[in-house]
Amino acid sequence: MSETKSSENIYIGVDGGGTKCKAVVWIDGEIKGEGLGGGANPYQNLERAKDSITNACQMALVDAGLKATHLRDCVAGLGLAGVNIPGPKKAMEAWDHPFKAMYLTGDLHTACLGAHGGDGAIIVTGTGSCGFAHVEGKDLMLGGYGFPLGDQGSGAWLGLEILKAALLSYDQLGPKTSLEEWVLEKYELNDLIDSIEHMAGKPSSEFAQLALGAFNTAKAGDEVAQKIIEVGAAYVNDLSLKLKEFGAPALSMIGGIGFLWKPYLSQEVLDFVVEPKEQPEVGAVYYAQQMHKK
Amino acid sequence: MSETKSSENIYIGVDGGGTKCKAVVWIDGEIKGEGLGGGANPYQNLERAKDSITNACQMALVDAGLKATHLRDCVAGLGLAGVNIPGPKKAMEAWDHPFKAMYLTGDLHTACLGAHGGDGAIIVTGTGSCGFAHVEGKDLMLGGYGFPLGDQGSGAWLGLEILKAALLSYDQLGPKTSLEEWVLEKYELNDLIDSIEHMAGKPSSEFAQLALGAFNTAKAGDEVAQKIIEVGAAYVNDLSLKLKEFGAPALSMIGGIGFLWKPYLSQEVLDFVVEPKEQPEVGAVYYAQQMHKK
Repeated sequence: MSETKSSENIYIGVDGGGTKCKAVVWIDGEIKGEGLGGGANPYQNLERAKDSITNACQMALVDAGLKATHLRDCVAGLGLAGVNIPGPKKAMEAWDHPFKAMYLTGDLHTACLGAHGGDGAIIVTGTGSCGFAHVEGKDLMLGGYGFPLGDQGSGAWLGLEILKAALLSYDQLGPKTSLEEWVLEKYELNDLIDSIEHMAGKPSSEFAQLALGAFNTAKAGDEVAQKIIEVGAAYVNDLSLKLKEFGAPALSMIGGIGFLWKPYLSQEVLDFVVEPKEQPEVGAVYYAQQMHKK
Repeated sequence: MSETKSSENIYIGVDGGGTKCKAVVWIDGEIKGEGLGGGANPYQNLERAKDSITNACQMALVDAGLKATHLRDCVAGLGLAGVNIPGPKKAMEAWDHPFKAMYLTGDLHTACLGAHGGDGAIIVTGTGSCGFAHVEGKDLMLGGYGFPLGDQGSGAWLGLEILKAALLSYDQLGPKTSLEEWVLEKYELNDLIDSIEHMAGKPSSEFAQLALGAFNTAKAGDEVAQKIIEVGAAYVNDLSLKLKEFGAPALSMIGGIGFLWKPYLSQEVLDFVVEPKEQPEVGAVYYAQQMHKK
C-alpha cells in the first residue's frame, strides 16, 4: 500500500523571540494553522520559553482543526533567539518536549531559510538585534548578545538610548530633547523621574515599547533623536556590509522595526536588500524537514 | 541632677551604596566603632539593604565594646543610595527598624555633610554616580538614576561600556580594542562570547568590577578605552560645573573611583575640588544629630 498524503508527517515551525513566538502547522506543503505565544527566548526566561512555545503550537493545531494533544504526532522545528549562547541552548535541548521530534536552531537560521530558501543573509531588529548569513554551507553570526550588552539598533537598545537622553535632558546635563515628552506620554507619567521606577526590573521588551519614538521624534527635527537613529543605522549598515563581504547574495530585514531602518541605510546596502519569500516560522518548518529526513 | 556625658545618645551613622555599607558608632563626639555590610541600596534590593545595614551597625557596636542588642538604644542616621526614588524611600521609611530612632536621607546628602560640615557639593562615583549640592538650605540633586538608565561615569557604566566595546571589537563591527583581553583576564575566560553568560542576571556591582580596565587600557594607548574615559570625564566635568553654578563653594569627589577621574577634569573644576573633611558615615551621624534635636 502506497503512503497516502494524509499519513505524511505533521510539521510545526516556531519562530521565537524576546517578546512573542509564532507557530505554524504545516501539512502537505501548506500552512494549515497558526498560533501565537509569549516571549520564547530561553536566555531570558527558560520556563516561559517552553510555555510560550507549547501554547503557540497547541493554538496552531486547534486553528488547523486538530486537537491540542496532537503535539505528540508533530515534528517541530524551533528557531529561537538566545540559543546562540551555549547554556540556554543546552537547557532547551534537555527539554522533555511534547513533540514526536524536536529540532532546535537559532531564530536567524530559520528566518534565513524562510527568507531565501537557501543561501542568503538576515538582519533581525525587533526587541533584540542580530545578523546572520548562510553561504555554501557556512554560517556567520554577528551580534545577538542581548540587552544591554549588545543588540545595537534593536527596539530595546533604542528604548534605553531614549531614556538615557531624556534623563540627561531632564538634568540639563545633555541637550534638550522632546524625547522627554515622548517618554512621559508613552508611560502616562507626569514627571520623568517616575520613569526610573516604571522601568525597575522590567525586561528588554518594555524598553522596546519606546522605540518608535526615536524615529518619530527624529523626523520631527529633534537632533538628539536624530543622533540616536544615526548611531543605530550605522550599526545596521556595518552589519549588512559584513554579511555581504561574507558572500551572501541577498539580505532581508526581519523583525518588528526592520522596515524603519531602511530609509537610513546606504545605497550599497539597499541594493542588497530583498523582501523575504516566506516568514521565519516557515523557515523553521523547512529546517525540521531537512533534519528529520537525515 | 545634671545629665552625665555617658547618658548622651549613642549615634550610629550609616553610608550605604550598591556594593557595601559602612556604619560608625559615635559617642561623646568621637567614632568608637566601625562596621561593614553588603550592598544597601533599597532600590536595587530592599531586603538586602535592611540586612546589610543591621549587620554593619551590629558589627560597629561590637567594635565599640557594646552588645549588638544595644541597637535599640541608638539614634541612627542612614544615608542611602536609591532613596532619591520615591518608592524605595517609602519602603525604607516603613521599615520596622531595630533602632531607637531612624532618620533617612540620601547618601549624597550625608556625604556632603561629612565632606564640608555645611554648604558644599559632592560627586560620588562608585558602583553608581550622582551629584549633589547643598547651598543656603537648598538642595540640587543630579543623576543617580541607577544602572543602566543613568550613572554615567560610574563603575557600572564603565563596565558596560567596556563590555559593549569589547563585543563590537570581537564581531569586527567596532574598532579593535585591548579591552577584549582585559575582560577575558578579569573574568578568567577563554572566549569573549562566554562573558555574555558570565554577566547574565548579575547586579551592577559585577559590571563595576571591570571599571579599572578603562583607565589602565586608556593609559596604555588604547583609543577605544580613551574614548570611553573621555565620555565619562565629560559627564563628570559637566556635573561639576552644574554644581558650581548652583553656588556651592567647594566640591568633593567621593566613591571608589572618584580619584581616578581627577586627571581628566578641566582646570576650572580642579580649582573647585577639595578633599572631604570627614567620611560620609560621619555625615550621617551629623544628620541624625540635626534631626533628633529638632
